[in-house]
Amino acid sequence: MLNTAATVKLSVTQLTDQLLSSYARVGGINHLDGKNLPSKSAIVGIAVDLLRLLFPGFFDDKIIHSSELKVETAILLDSVIGRLEDEIHKSFEYSNAVGNSKQELRKSAHQTTLEFLQQLPCIRDLLQTDAEAAFNGDPAALSKEEVIVAYPFIEAIAVQRLAHQLYLKNVPLIPRIMTEWAHSRTGMDLHPGAKIGSHFFVDHCTGTVVGETCNIGNHVKMYQGVSLIARSLSGGQQLKGVKRHPTIEDHVTVYAGATIMGGDTVVGAGSTIGANVFLTNSVPPRSLVVPDAFQYKVMNKPDRQSQILDFQI
Amino acid sequence: MLNTAATVKLSVTQLTDQLLSSYARVGGINHLDGKNLPSKSAIVGIAVDLLRLLFPGFFDDKIIHSSELKVETAILLDSVIGRLEDEIHKSFEYSNAVGNSKQELRKSAHQTTLEFLQQLPCIRDLLQTDAEAAFNGDPAALSKEEVIVAYPFIEAIAVQRLAHQLYLKNVPLIPRIMTEWAHSRTGMDLHPGAKIGSHFFVDHCTGTVVGETCNIGNHVKMYQGVSLIARSLSGGQQLKGVKRHPTIEDHVTVYAGATIMGGDTVVGAGSTIGANVFLTNSVPPRSLVVPDAFQYKVMNKPDRQSQILDFQI
Amino acid sequence: MLNTAATVKLSVTQLTDQLLSSYARVGGINHLDGKNLPSKSAIVGIAVDLLRLLFPGFFDDKIIHSSELKVETAILLDSVIGRLEDEIHKSFEYSNAVGNSKQELRKSAHQTTLEFLQQLPCIRDLLQTDAEAAFNGDPAALSKEEVIVAYPFIEAIAVQRLAHQLYLKNVPLIPRIMTEWAHSRTGMDLHPGAKIGSHFFVDHCTGTVVGETCNIGNHVKMYQGVSLIARSLSGGQQLKGVKRHPTIEDHVTVYAGATIMGGDTVVGAGSTIGANVFLTNSVPPRSLVVPDAFQYKVMNKPDRQSQILDFQI
Repeated sequence: MLNTAATVKLSVTQLTDQLLSSYARVGGINHLDGKNLPSKSAIVGIAVDLLRLLFPGFFDDKIIHSSELKVETAILLDSVIGRLEDEIHKSFEYSNAVGNSKQELRKSAHQTTLEFLQQLPCIRDLLQTDAEAAFNGDPAALSKEEVIVAYPFIEAIAVQRLAHQLYLKNVPLIPRIMTEWAHSRTGMDLHPGAKIGSHFFVDHCTGTVVGETCNIGNHVKMYQGVSLIARSLSGGQQLKGVKRHPTIEDHVTVYAGATIMGGDTVVGAGSTIGANVFLTNSVPPRSLVVPDAFQYKVMNKPDRQSQILDFQI
Repeated sequence: MLNTAATVKLSVTQLTDQLLSSYARVGGINHLDGKNLPSKSAIVGIAVDLLRLLFPGFFDDKIIHSSELKVETAILLDSVIGRLEDEIHKSFEYSNAVGNSKQELRKSAHQTTLEFLQQLPCIRDLLQTDAEAAFNGDPAALSKEEVIVAYPFIEAIAVQRLAHQLYLKNVPLIPRIMTEWAHSRTGMDLHPGAKIGSHFFVDHCTGTVVGETCNIGNHVKMYQGVSLIARSLSGGQQLKGVKRHPTIEDHVTVYAGATIMGGDTVVGAGSTIGANVFLTNSVPPRSLVVPDAFQYKVMNKPDRQSQILDFQI
Repeated sequence: MLNTAATVKLSVTQLTDQLLSSYARVGGINHLDGKNLPSKSAIVGIAVDLLRLLFPGFFDDKIIHSSELKVETAILLDSVIGRLEDEIHKSFEYSNAVGNSKQELRKSAHQTTLEFLQQLPCIRDLLQTDAEAAFNGDPAALSKEEVIVAYPFIEAIAVQRLAHQLYLKNVPLIPRIMTEWAHSRTGMDLHPGAKIGSHFFVDHCTGTVVGETCNIGNHVKMYQGVSLIARSLSGGQQLKGVKRHPTIEDHVTVYAGATIMGGDTVVGAGSTIGANVFLTNSVPPRSLVVPDAFQYKVMNKPDRQSQILDFQI
């Protein structure tokens, strides 16, 4: 389409001018002269160090001895406090709608950072129950050490429980950047807003999505590819804050690929949801939701070698 | 099985000889004395810089000021041109079936690089509509900045729209290496060949697959785990170039886990496909495809504590 | 909830004391004074080098010439032997239940490393059939080079076939760390324990899970989102070693999102399992398992613009 003789003469200057004209014309995907956004790479570094504080000795390259634990912990905490406060300060500057002064924002970032770090022991209490549920629930697990070192679930739930505390303190951007980092590594998307009880376990993780306003009880076990999602309504942004995702009560098991939808949907305690089920309304406690016996037909294929799948039959 | 006493004596030399003998015997998975293949790490570096050019200020560690924008853009473009031309040149050398001279290949690589970079403003036009669709379609999105910085969708669609332009210019290997990089990071596999309209949005992304010959209209919204795929036919490589993947018309919504199959399958405009549906034939415009009411049975489990799932009932 | 005036005064010392008290109180997720666990980053480095040995010339930044192949291979093998032996030694120390001496463990680690590396030619034989199956089975594949360089499947199956050999030699932790690394990069979770025949291919990979005691025949083709999993039984850890995952015989095709469950479930040779099917019992050879024609209802939506999905209808 383009005159090739002409195109080779295009210089960097011309390409630059075309892009600058696009920057001027197309808004919404530029971020110029703006407040400094929180840094993704800094937040990832902080998340890695928070995991080291939560699981001492597991994610360090060298052995941690009890005798050095106090010093090592203090050094790590000191480093995390400063870096986290900087990122929270940037996120508060970014969302500063009420015109707080620079000093007020800095003070607020400092306070939020300390309050957040005070939650670490409580987060550890919950994570200990998750590691227990993972080990007890998976015969393939050789040891609790294997679960913590190798299972993507532990990383995903630890990051979500951290991000959830920042979410509760109305820190913008950072919680989601944290959980999307874990999502990228584990394939599981746990929104920072979701309320998740104790003894949670998701085996394999990959493809599982838990939406912002989910409410998950204690002792819930799920598998890969489970979606706890909202109806797609034309309301869009007007639905912000409304409960849009399901409630899963205690001791529920949800098998691979099941989709449970809607803010009013409640899966009663002790229920089991079969694989690939699409559930859009509530079921009472102790329900077993399985495909009907007549859902599939099993036919004899005419030709053994053929892998042709003719769904027109 | 092996004599352990003997094995410990095996030296590096012996292991090397065994491997060399395997390299000589088993073909197809060696690449020796061949043309230099495009470098994965170089292509990833180029993709990262192209994202910085598409979304100025969003993926840079420091603030970009309008006053420096021209200089910064020119420097980045200059760097990208040289590196991209080198990789395209390698890919043309690799696929050089008609015996073009080294000089012709280099000239062709140069021209293709410039023509590709001229498309960046058009790609930005489309990405602006995608970011808008993502923000409007997700009540969990706090701001457009959050969407661009944290949502895996933006990265996946930006890389696909870049790779699609290279695919249209018959650049081998590089488009797929680019989209597989995004696939690895986002869990979504958008083939460079797929035609995708404006205002596209895939929420959560993870597990979604869009095949090479898909044709997706404007204002299409999809969720995680959606598969737009081909029938698996015994034809294999003989089907290259044939339309094998579905057509999705404008304003269609496809829920989590739905699978839509086949090159003749057309989902009519304005339709909604429910979660986990397996659709193998066309549906007219404004269709609502949902599981039949009798698909599932909900039973009362005999024992609340038991998580045993007996599908033999 | 907290007194904010007080919280800002909390010092690093106080936060440290809170965490130390949590470390003392909450067990199971600390690893202190313990044996040095195998290093994740070292294992990833070893896996990368093993891929270079399996596919010479494909994952190197420079061209490998036949004339240098012997020297390059010997250097790489020499480096891998030492590093792998160190990690296997750590894993044997970690699991040393019978009280073997340090010398015995070191000798055993050395021998296991050499025996494992002797398997590389056999692993290459299998991988060559996998690359062939991938190329033949996917019309979107431009060349075998593209398959090896860009397809996540090749990386995932290569790492599983390596890890499976370590699993057979009862090496703890390392096999799972290897496959979880590939899982994180490809979205596919192939357990090191699974027995997988020749000419295996999983298109797109993302979301597919193959459990520990699966038995997969030759010429099996699968897609993204397939789950070959265990029933979730209350037995938990007591089921270790029991066959809990399905058997897939030769020449079977399993479409996207299908879930096949249970240790007694056998999918007979030459069968095809449709997308999103949930199969919990055996099917005879040459079966075609598809959703029943009455599974879905297709309705006309009242309002074309509306994307409201009312499943209460």
